[in-house]
Amino acid sequence: MSKAVSSTPDANLSRDRFPGHQALREALLEAYRRVRSKTEQLARPITPEDAQIQTIDDVSPTKWHLGHTSWFYETFLLKDLPGYKPPEPEFTVIFNSYYNLIGEQYPRPLRGMLSRPSLAEIMDYRHEVDAGFVELVENASPTEVEKLTGLIEVGLNHEEQHQELLLSDILHVYWSNAIRPAYRDVRRVPLAKAEPARWHRYDEGLFWIGHEGDRFAYDHETPRHRVFVHGFQLASRLVTAGEYQQFMEDGGYRRPELWLSDGYAALHEQGWQAPLYWEQRDGAWWCMTLAGMRPVESSRPVCHVSYYEADAYARWAGARLPTEAEWEVVAAQAPVDGNLRDAGVYMTLPSGVDASPEHPHQLYGDVWEWTQSAYSAYPGFRPNQGALGEYNGKFMCNQMVLRGGSFATPKRHIRATYRNFFQPYQRWQFSGFRLAKDGSGR
Amino acid sequence: MSKAVSSTPDANLSRDRFPGHQALREALLEAYRRVRSKTEQLARPITPEDAQIQTIDDVSPTKWHLGHTSWFYETFLLKDLPGYKPPEPEFTVIFNSYYNLIGEQYPRPLRGMLSRPSLAEIMDYRHEVDAGFVELVENASPTEVEKLTGLIEVGLNHEEQHQELLLSDILHVYWSNAIRPAYRDVRRVPLAKAEPARWHRYDEGLFWIGHEGDRFAYDHETPRHRVFVHGFQLASRLVTAGEYQQFMEDGGYRRPELWLSDGYAALHEQGWQAPLYWEQRDGAWWCMTLAGMRPVESSRPVCHVSYYEADAYARWAGARLPTEAEWEVVAAQAPVDGNLRDAGVYMTLPSGVDASPEHPHQLYGDVWEWTQSAYSAYPGFRPNQGALGEYNGKFMCNQMVLRGGSFATPKRHIRATYRNFFQPYQRWQFSGFRLAKDGSGR
Amino acid sequence: MSKAVSSTPDANLSRDRFPGHQALREALLEAYRRVRSKTEQLARPITPEDAQIQTIDDVSPTKWHLGHTSWFYETFLLKDLPGYKPPEPEFTVIFNSYYNLIGEQYPRPLRGMLSRPSLAEIMDYRHEVDAGFVELVENASPTEVEKLTGLIEVGLNHEEQHQELLLSDILHVYWSNAIRPAYRDVRRVPLAKAEPARWHRYDEGLFWIGHEGDRFAYDHETPRHRVFVHGFQLASRLVTAGEYQQFMEDGGYRRPELWLSDGYAALHEQGWQAPLYWEQRDGAWWCMTLAGMRPVESSRPVCHVSYYEADAYARWAGARLPTEAEWEVVAAQAPVDGNLRDAGVYMTLPSGVDASPEHPHQLYGDVWEWTQSAYSAYPGFRPNQGALGEYNGKFMCNQMVLRGGSFATPKRHIRATYRNFFQPYQRWQFSGFRLAKDGSGR
Amino acid sequence: MSKAVSSTPDANLSRDRFPGHQALREALLEAYRRVRSKTEQLARPITPEDAQIQTIDDVSPTKWHLGHTSWFYETFLLKDLPGYKPPEPEFTVIFNSYYNLIGEQYPRPLRGMLSRPSLAEIMDYRHEVDAGFVELVENASPTEVEKLTGLIEVGLNHEEQHQELLLSDILHVYWSNAIRPAYRDVRRVPLAKAEPARWHRYDEGLFWIGHEGDRFAYDHETPRHRVFVHGFQLASRLVTAGEYQQFMEDGGYRRPELWLSDGYAALHEQGWQAPLYWEQRDGAWWCMTLAGMRPVESSRPVCHVSYYEADAYARWAGARLPTEAEWEVVAAQAPVDGNLRDAGVYMTLPSGVDASPEHPHQLYGDVWEWTQSAYSAYPGFRPNQGALGEYNGKFMCNQMVLRGGSFATPKRHIRATYRNFFQPYQRWQFSGFRLAKDGSGR
Repeated sequence: MSKAVSSTPDANLSRDRFPGHQALREALLEAYRRVRSKTEQLARPITPEDAQIQTIDDVSPTKWHLGHTSWFYETFLLKDLPGYKPPEPEFTVIFNSYYNLIGEQYPRPLRGMLSRPSLAEIMDYRHEVDAGFVELVENASPTEVEKLTGLIEVGLNHEEQHQELLLSDILHVYWSNAIRPAYRDVRRVPLAKAEPARWHRYDEGLFWIGHEGDRFAYDHETPRHRVFVHGFQLASRLVTAGEYQQFMEDGGYRRPELWLSDGYAALHEQGWQAPLYWEQRDGAWWCMTLAGMRPVESSRPVCHVSYYEADAYARWAGARLPTEAEWEVVAAQAPVDGNLRDAGVYMTLPSGVDASPEHPHQLYGDVWEWTQSAYSAYPGFRPNQGALGEYNGKFMCNQMVLRGGSFATPKRHIRATYRNFFQPYQRWQFSGFRLAKDGSGR
Repeated sequence: MSKAVSSTPDANLSRDRFPGHQALREALLEAYRRVRSKTEQLARPITPEDAQIQTIDDVSPTKWHLGHTSWFYETFLLKDLPGYKPPEPEFTVIFNSYYNLIGEQYPRPLRGMLSRPSLAEIMDYRHEVDAGFVELVENASPTEVEKLTGLIEVGLNHEEQHQELLLSDILHVYWSNAIRPAYRDVRRVPLAKAEPARWHRYDEGLFWIGHEGDRFAYDHETPRHRVFVHGFQLASRLVTAGEYQQFMEDGGYRRPELWLSDGYAALHEQGWQAPLYWEQRDGAWWCMTLAGMRPVESSRPVCHVSYYEADAYARWAGARLPTEAEWEVVAAQAPVDGNLRDAGVYMTLPSGVDASPEHPHQLYGDVWEWTQSAYSAYPGFRPNQGALGEYNGKFMCNQMVLRGGSFATPKRHIRATYRNFFQPYQRWQFSGFRLAKDGSGR
Repeated sequence: MSKAVSSTPDANLSRDRFPGHQALREALLEAYRRVRSKTEQLARPITPEDAQIQTIDDVSPTKWHLGHTSWFYETFLLKDLPGYKPPEPEFTVIFNSYYNLIGEQYPRPLRGMLSRPSLAEIMDYRHEVDAGFVELVENASPTEVEKLTGLIEVGLNHEEQHQELLLSDILHVYWSNAIRPAYRDVRRVPLAKAEPARWHRYDEGLFWIGHEGDRFAYDHETPRHRVFVHGFQLASRLVTAGEYQQFMEDGGYRRPELWLSDGYAALHEQGWQAPLYWEQRDGAWWCMTLAGMRPVESSRPVCHVSYYEADAYARWAGARLPTEAEWEVVAAQAPVDGNLRDAGVYMTLPSGVDASPEHPHQLYGDVWEWTQSAYSAYPGFRPNQGALGEYNGKFMCNQMVLRGGSFATPKRHIRATYRNFFQPYQRWQFSGFRLAKDGSGR
Repeated sequence: MSKAVSSTPDANLSRDRFPGHQALREALLEAYRRVRSKTEQLARPITPEDAQIQTIDDVSPTKWHLGHTSWFYETFLLKDLPGYKPPEPEFTVIFNSYYNLIGEQYPRPLRGMLSRPSLAEIMDYRHEVDAGFVELVENASPTEVEKLTGLIEVGLNHEEQHQELLLSDILHVYWSNAIRPAYRDVRRVPLAKAEPARWHRYDEGLFWIGHEGDRFAYDHETPRHRVFVHGFQLASRLVTAGEYQQFMEDGGYRRPELWLSDGYAALHEQGWQAPLYWEQRDGAWWCMTLAGMRPVESSRPVCHVSYYEADAYARWAGARLPTEAEWEVVAAQAPVDGNLRDAGVYMTLPSGVDASPEHPHQLYGDVWEWTQSAYSAYPGFRPNQGALGEYNGKFMCNQMVLRGGSFATPKRHIRATYRNFFQPYQRWQFSGFRLAKDGSGR
C-alpha cells in the first residue's frame, strides 16, 4: 500500500483507494510524515533570528508557522482525546490564528514579539504532536480511522498552505534586510523571449463549477453548481514582467483613469511605483526573489502585484481580468501541471514563458492569478461544522479570488476548483494575472 | 406637453415621448426646475451653521451638496460652450468630488473647513448656473437638444442622489449635536404590531437582469444579461427593529461566530452595540431620526445598520441576505411603489409594516436593502465615455450592492435595476435588509 | 470715579485706588463693560460660518470663545449664588475648557462640530451672563465687593487672553480658506530698512523676579524670588523676517546640526520649510496676516515660528535664546510700551523695526518672544485654590515660556512678570524671538 | 600600573594619575577590556531570539546594543586612521543611533527587523573593533595617547550607559513574553519594614553645581556655575512601593486634580493603573523584574514610574519633587555609594530601605530619581565639537532630568553632577523618585 502511495505521491486520500483499514491507516501516516517533513525541510535554511521576526502584520515568523501547523492537529484531532494532556498549555492561545470558537488568540501583529518559545522548543512541540498523531492513527478502530480521514486531510492541506506562506513570508523578511540574503541560490539560465500572448475563445453557456466527489476540497469550493458564462476570450499565458514594464513606462502608475478609486488611493498612500520587491539599479529593474536580488527578466510572469495593479494593467491593455468561473471553465479542461513546487527545477521563481501556447498554459503554477471575482459564497454554500467553519466562510468580504497556484504550491494541493483569496491591496504573495476579454468573437 | 409632464411627474425623459423638439426642450426645462427647486426646498430648514459642518469624512456639508450639484451641470454641460466664463473659477476645484479627468479636487475630509464661499454665495452660484442652463437649452438646435438630453438626465439623477445624501448627512450633523434638533417634526401615530414575515419561493432558472431601453439608467445597470439563479426564498418584508432587538438581546454583538471576520473587527474598533443612532434611555431604546429622537418602534424596519450587522443577523436567523440578482428577479415583477420620498406622509422615517404580505412588499422605499453581492461589473459592462466614466466604474471594489431605495429616495429615481453601493462598514445611510434562503422548497 | 478710571483706562483694579466701595463697584462694572464690549467688537467682522469652524485642534471657533468667556464668569462668580438658575444648563459642559474640578468637558477637537448653539444663541447667553454680573456687583455688600474683586480680575484677564486667541484662531481659519479673506484691511506703508541689531550687556548678579504687590497677576508669576543670573548680552530688537530669510537661504531647514532632535523630527513630519503662513509666489515670499496675504516685509519681526525654529535660528546665528529670567531682568527696567493692541495703528501686524535702538526695544508688543526656559513652577509656587488652580499649574510640563505680548495683546494685560507658554512645536500664535549671548563681555 | 588600576577599579582615567605614557596606555587598555568584557558578560544569558526583538520603539535589541557600542569606537577613534578599512561597511548606517553629522541612520523603530547581521556576526565585529582599538592605543605616540584619552573615556562611558539600557530593554522583552522568563534568579530574602522617611532641611544660598576638573564628565554637566537655591527639605529616602500603593488605593490614578494635564492624558491613552510591569494576581500586586515575576515588596523603592506619576504622587503627598540643583547640593556631600551594579548583592532589584536614615541615603543607586527640572543647558554650556556635540545637547527639550543612578548603573559611572534625562511619559527605565518640600523650616 505504501508502495501505491509512493507511486502516486500527490493523490488525495480517497477512501475508496484504500480498501482495507490498515491500508488507509498506513496511507494516512505516510502522507502525514511526508507533509510534516517537507515543512521542516523548507524551514531548514532559515536561521533562528530570521525565523523570529515579523516584518509586517501580514507576515508570520517561520517559528510561528512551525508551531501553528502543529497546534492545528493538536486542536482538531488530539486535544479532546480521553486523557490527553497538552504538552504546552499556553500554546493554545499563542498558536491559535483566528478560531474564535477555540478560544482566545494572541494578537497577530505581535507574533514577532514571541522570542519564547524558542525555535528549538517549537520543534520539540512539533515532535510531541507527531507522536500523538501516530498513536492516534495506529490505535484508531476501523470506524474511527474513516472518520478521522477527513480531518486529517484538512490538517495536511492546511499545512501545505502554510508551507507556501512560510516561503512568501520569509521572502519579505529577507527583503527587509539591508543585505538581502537568498533563501536558495539558483543558477541563472538564459530565457527565450516571450512570444505575444494569443486569445483563446469560449462560447457562452451554462456551466458547472465547484467541487463534487469524495476527494478532498475545502468547504468553499462547494456545492458544485451551475453558472451562466457569457462568451469570452482568455489569454494564452500570464502577463510578463516585460509587458508590465511597458505599462510602467507608459505612465501606468501616474494615470488615475486606469485605476480603481481605492487602488489609486493605495498607490498614493504606499508610494507604489512598481511591483513589490522591484527596485532600480543603474537604470535597470531588479527584484527580490527567493534566489536573492536578480535583474527582472522580461519573459517571466510579473509577480507580487496587487489586484489593483492587475486591474489597472488590464484597463490599460484594453482588456479585463477573468472571472473565477471563466477561469475554472477553462482550467477544468487542462491537466494539473506546470511550474509547481514539486516540479523541482525552479522552486524559487516563476518560469519563463513557453513559446507556443497552443492551449492556455501556465494555468497551474508560476503565480496565483487574480480574478475579478469578489470572494463570496457559492449558492447553497454550507460552512464546515464547528470551529472549522471559520476556516474560510468568515472571510467572504473585501477579498478577491485568486486561482491556479504558484511555483511555491505543491502539485498535490492545487486543482481547478481551488479558491485562494486575498485583500486587493496585498502584494506579498506570489500573485500575478492573465487577461480576458468579453465576447467569444464568434 | 408640459401638461403631459405634470400629469406623470416622475416619468423619465424618454425621447420618444416628446415628438417635437420644442416639447422635449420644455420637458427638460420643467424637469430641471422641479429637481433644482426640490433641492433648495430640502435645504431650507437648515441653518447656515448646520449647513457648514462635516461631522465625519463620509458626511458632506449641506453647502457643499448645493454647490457640487450645480458644479456638475456647469462641468458637463456649460463649461465647454464657446464664450463661457465660469462665475467662480475656484469652484472648479472646491466642488469637484472625485473626477480626476476634470482636474484637481479639494480634499474630501476638509469640506467642512470651507467657511467661504458662504451659503449665500453658493446660492448665487446655483442661480448663475441655472441661468446658463436655461439659456443653453432654449438656444440649442434640434440636433443639440437631443444630444443634451442624456447628459441632462445624468445631471438630474445625480442631483436626486444628492438630495438623499443631503438628508442622510444632515441627520448625522443633528445627531452629533448635544441638543439633537429635528429636521422636521412628525406627529407620532400608533403602529400595528408587525405580523411575522412569510417566505416567498422562487424556482431556479436563467433570468435576464439589468437595464435595456431608452429610459434613463446608469451605465453600471447595463448591459442586460442572463444569469442563472438557483431556487431561493425571499422574505415578504424587511427585518424590523423589533426583530433586530431580539438579535441584540440574544448576544448578537458579542458572538463572534455570527460575524464576518472584518465585521467583528469593525464592531470592536467602533464599539458597536446597536445600530447607528440608537441609544438607551431608562432601559428603552431610542433612536435619532429626521424627526428627532424617538423611541424605537418595533414594527418599523431596522435602519442604519452596516452590511456586517445585516449579515450577522441573517446568520443568527438561520438565513442569508439575497443576491442582487435574486432581488431584481422578484422586484421586476412588482410595481415601483412604497414609502418613497414623494409618498409624502412619512418623508422622515421608514414606515410601519403591512399586516398582510400577499406579495413581497417594501421592495421599494423605506430603507435600502443590503444584498450579499459585491459591487462589480456586469458581463460586457462599458463605462460612460470621458469623465462620466468615473461616476460608477471606479468604485467596483470593496463595496456591497444595496437595492430598492429608501423613504428619502424620489419615486422618479428608483427602479428594479437600480444599483446602489456602499462599503460594508458604513451605517449612516438609510440602510436595512431583508432575508433570503436557499432552495425553492419545491 | 468712573472719570478716574477713564483717564487711566488700562490700569489694574488695585483696591487701594478706590477708597469707597461704591467707587470700586463702579470701577469693576466699567472694566467689565469695556472688556466685554471689546470682545464683541473684535468678533463683529466674523461671519457665522467663519465663526463656526475649527481648522485644527488648537484652534477654537470664534463662537466658542464668545461662549467660554461668558461661562467663566458664570462658573466662578454666579453659579453658586443662592437661587441662581443657569440660562443654558448644557453649556456647563460645552464651554468648560479644561476644568476637571468643575466637571465634564466637551472634547476639544469637536468644538467645531457644535453648530448648535447658534452664534445668535451664544450672544443671548453672553447678555444673560452680563445681566447676572451687573446684578451681582450692584447688590454686593462692601465686604463682598472686596472679595469679588480678585475673581473679577481673573475673569477680565482671562477674557483678554481669549481676545488674542480669537484673533490668532481666526487667522488660521482665514488662511485655511482658498480665497484667503482679510480680517481687516490695512494700508501698506513703506518701511525703513532695519538697522543691524546691537548687543546690550548685563552683568551677573542675584536678581529678584516674579510678581509682588496687590495689582493683579496670575498665580504662576509668584512668588517673587531671587535668581542668580550670569553675565549675558541681549539683542536690541527682535529677529526680523529679512534675517530669518537669510537663515532659510543658508539651508536652515535642511541642516540637522542646527536643530534640536525633536525639532528636526517635527520639521520632517510637518514638512516645514518656512514659518507658518508663508508661501512663495513667483519667487517671492508672501505671508498670511490679519490684513490678508501680503509680501513678507524684511523689516518686520518674523512671526509664527515654533520654539524649534527660533532655537535653530539662534544656533545658526552663533547665539541662543534668552532665559525668562534674563528677559525679565531687562524688561523690568523698560516702560510697558510698544506695538500693543491698543496702540491702534497696526492692530493686525507686527511693526517695522526702529532704526536707533539705544535701549532694547520691542520688549512689549509686536510678537511674543520664545525663551529657552521650560515652563515650570517658581520656588515656593502655590496654585490658586479650587478649580482656578487648574488655570496654569497643570500645564507645567512640555511647554516653553514666551514673554512680552504681541500686537494683539492689550496694553492693560501685559507686564514684565507676565508668563505665556506654549508647546515648542506650536506656530499659530503671534510668536517670534530675540537673541541672547553668554557673558557680559566685561 | 595595572596593579594600581585594579586596586581602584572604578576610578576615572585622570591623566595626572598616570605619569608615564606607557602607564596611561596600559590603563586605557585595561579599562577598555574591563568595560567590553562586562558588556558581553551581561549579554551572555540572553538567547539569540531574545536578543533579536524590539518590543517597543524605545527598546533596542540586545544585538543592536552590542553592535552600536562597537560602532561608537570605530566611528570616533578608528575610521579616520590612515589605511583603515571598515570590516562591515554597511554597519555604518545600521549601528548609527542618531548622529546626523556621521551620516544616514537606520530607522530606530526597525532595529528589531535586522535579523542579519546575526548575533554571531555582531560578536565577530566587536572583536575586530577590539583588535583595531588595541593596535591604535599600542602604537599611539605619547602625544597621541594623551589626545585619545578623552575620546576613549567617552566611549567607555557610552558603553556603560548601554550596559544599563541593555538590562532595562531586555526586561521589557522578557515582560512582553507570555512565560515571563527571569534574566537572573535571585533568592528572596525577607525585608525589614520601611521606617517613615524623615525630612532633612537645607538653608537657602548661592551654590556651585556642575562639573569641573580633569576627571571625565559629559559636556552637559558643565560649566560649573552658581545657582541660587531657596531653603528646602529633602526626604531621607526614596518613596517605597508600599507608600505608592497607598496613593493607588486612595484613587491616585482616578483623580485628575493630582495630575499634570499631559500626565492625565497619558494615563488615559495608555490605560495606566499602576507602575509599568505591575499586575494583580489574586488581589495582590506582583511586578516583573530581572529576577522574574515577584510579589511587590513594600519596603523597596517604587520603580518604573513616569515623571507624571512621580509628580502626581508628590502632589498627593503634599510635597513636590526636588530640582536637580537641590538634589546635587545634597548629593555632593555624600559618598558615591549605594545599591549600584557592582555592589553585587542585588544586581537585579532596588534594595530594601535602611531603617535609620541619619543622612539622606539611597542618593546613589537603587533607582534613578526624577527631578522637577526640565533638561536644559547650563549657563555658558558649550556642546562637544563635531558629531559628539549631538550626544546630549540636541535633546534639551521635552525631557526631565533624573539623578543618582540605579542598581543597574556601574559605580564608576555615576557622580553627583551626573545628569540623565528621559521624556516624562517614559517608564521602562529603572526610575523612581524622592520627595522635597519648600522652606528650610528655619
